[in-house]
Amino acid sequence: MLKVGLLGAGRIGQVHAVNIARHPGSTLAAVSDVHAPAAEALAATYGAEVRSSGDIIADSAIDAVLIATSTDTHSDLIEAATAAGKAVLCEKPVDLSLERARACLAAAEGGTVMIGFNRRFDASMAAMRTALAGGEVGTAELLSITSYDPAPPPVAYVKVSGGMFRDMTIHDFDMATFMMGEMPVTVSAAASSLVDPEIGAAGDFDTAVVTLTYGDGRLAVIRNSRRAAYGYDQRIELLGSAGALQVDNVTETKLVKSTVDGITGAKPTYFFLERYMPAYVAEWDAFVTAVTNGTAVPVTLADGVAALELAEAATRSAREGRPVALSEI
Amino acid sequence: MLKVGLLGAGRIGQVHAVNIARHPGSTLAAVSDVHAPAAEALAATYGAEVRSSGDIIADSAIDAVLIATSTDTHSDLIEAATAAGKAVLCEKPVDLSLERARACLAAAEGGTVMIGFNRRFDASMAAMRTALAGGEVGTAELLSITSYDPAPPPVAYVKVSGGMFRDMTIHDFDMATFMMGEMPVTVSAAASSLVDPEIGAAGDFDTAVVTLTYGDGRLAVIRNSRRAAYGYDQRIELLGSAGALQVDNVTETKLVKSTVDGITGAKPTYFFLERYMPAYVAEWDAFVTAVTNGTAVPVTLADGVAALELAEAATRSAREGRPVALSEI
Amino acid sequence: MLKVGLLGAGRIGQVHAVNIARHPGSTLAAVSDVHAPAAEALAATYGAEVRSSGDIIADSAIDAVLIATSTDTHSDLIEAATAAGKAVLCEKPVDLSLERARACLAAAEGGTVMIGFNRRFDASMAAMRTALAGGEVGTAELLSITSYDPAPPPVAYVKVSGGMFRDMTIHDFDMATFMMGEMPVTVSAAASSLVDPEIGAAGDFDTAVVTLTYGDGRLAVIRNSRRAAYGYDQRIELLGSAGALQVDNVTETKLVKSTVDGITGAKPTYFFLERYMPAYVAEWDAFVTAVTNGTAVPVTLADGVAALELAEAATRSAREGRPVALSEI
Amino acid sequence: MLKVGLLGAGRIGQVHAVNIARHPGSTLAAVSDVHAPAAEALAATYGAEVRSSGDIIADSAIDAVLIATSTDTHSDLIEAATAAGKAVLCEKPVDLSLERARACLAAAEGGTVMIGFNRRFDASMAAMRTALAGGEVGTAELLSITSYDPAPPPVAYVKVSGGMFRDMTIHDFDMATFMMGEMPVTVSAAASSLVDPEIGAAGDFDTAVVTLTYGDGRLAVIRNSRRAAYGYDQRIELLGSAGALQVDNVTETKLVKSTVDGITGAKPTYFFLERYMPAYVAEWDAFVTAVTNGTAVPVTLADGVAALELAEAATRSAREGRPVALSEI
Repeated sequence: MLKVGLLGAGRIGQVHAVNIARHPGSTLAAVSDVHAPAAEALAATYGAEVRSSGDIIADSAIDAVLIATSTDTHSDLIEAATAAGKAVLCEKPVDLSLERARACLAAAEGGTVMIGFNRRFDASMAAMRTALAGGEVGTAELLSITSYDPAPPPVAYVKVSGGMFRDMTIHDFDMATFMMGEMPVTVSAAASSLVDPEIGAAGDFDTAVVTLTYGDGRLAVIRNSRRAAYGYDQRIELLGSAGALQVDNVTETKLVKSTVDGITGAKPTYFFLERYMPAYVAEWDAFVTAVTNGTAVPVTLADGVAALELAEAATRSAREGRPVALSEI
Repeated sequence: MLKVGLLGAGRIGQVHAVNIARHPGSTLAAVSDVHAPAAEALAATYGAEVRSSGDIIADSAIDAVLIATSTDTHSDLIEAATAAGKAVLCEKPVDLSLERARACLAAAEGGTVMIGFNRRFDASMAAMRTALAGGEVGTAELLSITSYDPAPPPVAYVKVSGGMFRDMTIHDFDMATFMMGEMPVTVSAAASSLVDPEIGAAGDFDTAVVTLTYGDGRLAVIRNSRRAAYGYDQRIELLGSAGALQVDNVTETKLVKSTVDGITGAKPTYFFLERYMPAYVAEWDAFVTAVTNGTAVPVTLADGVAALELAEAATRSAREGRPVALSEI
Repeated sequence: MLKVGLLGAGRIGQVHAVNIARHPGSTLAAVSDVHAPAAEALAATYGAEVRSSGDIIADSAIDAVLIATSTDTHSDLIEAATAAGKAVLCEKPVDLSLERARACLAAAEGGTVMIGFNRRFDASMAAMRTALAGGEVGTAELLSITSYDPAPPPVAYVKVSGGMFRDMTIHDFDMATFMMGEMPVTVSAAASSLVDPEIGAAGDFDTAVVTLTYGDGRLAVIRNSRRAAYGYDQRIELLGSAGALQVDNVTETKLVKSTVDGITGAKPTYFFLERYMPAYVAEWDAFVTAVTNGTAVPVTLADGVAALELAEAATRSAREGRPVALSEI
Repeated sequence: MLKVGLLGAGRIGQVHAVNIARHPGSTLAAVSDVHAPAAEALAATYGAEVRSSGDIIADSAIDAVLIATSTDTHSDLIEAATAAGKAVLCEKPVDLSLERARACLAAAEGGTVMIGFNRRFDASMAAMRTALAGGEVGTAELLSITSYDPAPPPVAYVKVSGGMFRDMTIHDFDMATFMMGEMPVTVSAAASSLVDPEIGAAGDFDTAVVTLTYGDGRLAVIRNSRRAAYGYDQRIELLGSAGALQVDNVTETKLVKSTVDGITGAKPTYFFLERYMPAYVAEWDAFVTAVTNGTAVPVTLADGVAALELAEAATRSAREGRPVALSEI
């Protein structure tokens, strides 16, 4: 039974708390949060203690920590936790600073750190990768990722988010690497602010097309928008030499209405919590299994840094209006 | 080059005229209609002569006749045309009187008569039968036919139509035999007038469920309505021992609109002319090919009589509230 | 916090145990089972006591019991539990004997008894009923329920199951009443044994079409098979005066593969545990909410008896080869 | 009745011949081809004369010419035909040389020239533009065009085709302008040869992602491949401020097979002749209608030159590895 300390009791921390508590191989031992009432509420629900993150990391009875705090604390907490011998599951992104993230990667070497790229654990995405790896559509040639949020975040959030590429597209960058099995050599991004002019005024983008070119000429393209009126649009397609694979959206229900106005089905599930709840459960299970069995975690800290490199390259490409080589980053 | 006489220049006759004229193996030589202007308009368009049906049948230069006249003339015309050595394609139903249809079948024995069950020539329906015959889902166990018209016909038409089972369901009865490969032993129909009370007042039905039981216990069910607000609903499903086959509706376009109100696709094509136009082309091609090659026509007069027997049984079942054995008919 | 005793620790009892334990408004206090190890395993997992069903019912500290025992014990347990003032959620069917079920209904009058027709709590089915009730497709005219199991049960089970109509179709009967809002006046069933000859030898059916006729002429048809090679097929359609509603299958993933062999999507989820797991959660939540708030349970014991009446009528109809009036039952 | 001369009796000329002959407002009067037997066969089928293209253009009894000859002759024939007062429908592309195409545009000024961008006449594409123009999804933000051929052309063809962007993507460039309603300001292409190394050896590409940036920040992305094992993949999506529009593939049939291996539907229609045959009919009808009524043709020679400009920019971008401004072209 893995004894787990949860650092951060906000929205995503609450999701993880449920999964930690329900998993037969883990128990939620302690919770910390800079906002005490949040930690207290979670702790009360699951019979855990409220403690500081430092105490939790220092406690030898704690086997693992889940880091769901604000991004600027991730690197420090990863380093402290691995130094204390804890297994770590840390939410994305590793850091807004690529330099700091790289330093963290070096510091945490030898430790057990998994990054929370939850989409890898979505049943459909995972099945797609398995089908691809099994050669069911030949070799990969052209990958397409569609990733639209239902509505833009508040501008206040945008300003501290590191920008769309580091905050939102980072999931798509990881998915590209997950599917293509390697890093691209160049990144070319076209990006605009069409959804909310305040996002543009804050120096960020809300709509983008990012093209990735791989060493052997394979291509990938990511489409992003901060707004899709019909809900969270999360699709992925891969054209291979012998066919194509495609993951469609999950819908709220399977009800279809046929009237004189057309044939109408349900919208996609609203946002990531609805779409990826089963993926968070599977992610936690994968972490517990790896830590318990002493096997490698399926998403590494290096994967987190790699995704950040792509975000850095895309940001530079969009700002400078030119393809950026990964070797520049 | 098959020289063809078209008997009947109404709506369905006009459809056939185009197909006869366009087919590289047939030419439209003559047209008849009780309403002279209709015949004249068609003849002018395709460079054919206007003649009486008697003249056309008597003309040894005419190879084949297509009978698209009112139902009460079908049997007489089939008999006359086959007696004159013409190949015949006759629209459904053979006759409203089963007795008369049976007499026609006997009289036309040895002649070449094909009945216009156009759905057998629909690419999807035909592919379904091929898949079934090829054992792709094992042996057939439960067939389901959905057949809804977009809107009810005028009551004046209903009164002379022979009733919904002879007029509309007859296509579904033929499709059941086409797929199951044999006639059922009992027919059980539940029917109501829900769409238009005048249809009920005229002694007919507009909504029905018909269950067919086959000798070996296999089952089929037909669902009918004279009204589907969203268009012509023409689907068919077959559960087999190793899977299922299903034909979905053809839609007006492939456009899908996603908004806050849902994900909306196009409606089915409106009615039989839109849905089955390619099937009419294929039907005519099958007729020309069979006649030209001297091979058997793919839908026989006996098939037409068989469908009428099922219509008769369904009508009796619905009226008497009991399953009717085919042996009673 | 509702203190719950679980009677029956078999497969479905285990499903309920999880939901009882996880619900914030209920706790699993005690478990009974005729097979002690099953009860012990469940009790250990959730920190509950193992007790006899009699003890549990007699314990005034227990607020509610969930009856997941074998069908022949349902009526007795419902009566005992309601007599002891417990709120009851009982699995379907109420009883194999309609007479006994009716007696139970009379005996339990005034008590709080909910029957576990889980499909009413499926998000898609519930949304369909809401849409229908909201007049989104006008008034209901023709309801169609498709309900195929992936594989037949062992013949040993079939022999004690009360037959397909009482064991399997009973869910579809309840769904028909749920959607149509009233009981039909006649039931007409055609049924065969096509899947497994031993099922036929045991006097039961494995393939059926059941037609329900309502007082105002509205119709419903249920299609059943004990075997669909591709998984659990659970669809429902309703044709209304202004359109149609349809619930499609839930699939294992959203992955689609396109190759030279066609465009292939995932199969439906395998069976009822996979398909209806969220419905069981919602069902339990509805029970807890009703009991806690003192409001009416959404599926009553009378609903359970009504479904049994339809099963009785269908069984008689299939055996006697005639429509059976509900007034005969 | 428009008297039409058909210049070019190859594959696409044959498609047009049928449509010219069948249209009630046009007749096929003459056919020319450098390969005499091809012209003779077509002429015989439709009762037209075989003549040289010069004779046809010089004949004052001919109202219109359809240019379906090899691309290198288009500009000369357009100029000659418009000088002779003929209405012209010319296949794409206008020319492989942008300079020559621009000269042709200047020379043909005042004449009636329509370019054969058939996809604009596809019912689904046209419905999408109508929905967009009607504001059904708000304002356009991000357009995505998927355009994969089923199999690559012979390398001999590739060498004279002007390259993938001028030969294949040109349709997608026109579609982008059709939907977005204006030309982009920059074009950025990433392209590879993954399908056939001989295509790469010939200096061309077979796989590409092209990003278009519009003056107001709106974006479009085109995905191309010369090979999709499952058939001709022709989809288009548009994300707008209030929703999205999407055109899916047309499939060979509507048959769906469900087995233990999954749920398999039919493939897309094989290639452009199958997919766009109705679009060619509608295109010809639009031309006849415009010429007969003296109204503007719906696709102009300027549209043809504009698409060529985008092809030129994309070619340059892919070769130079940088975004290319339209102002450079």
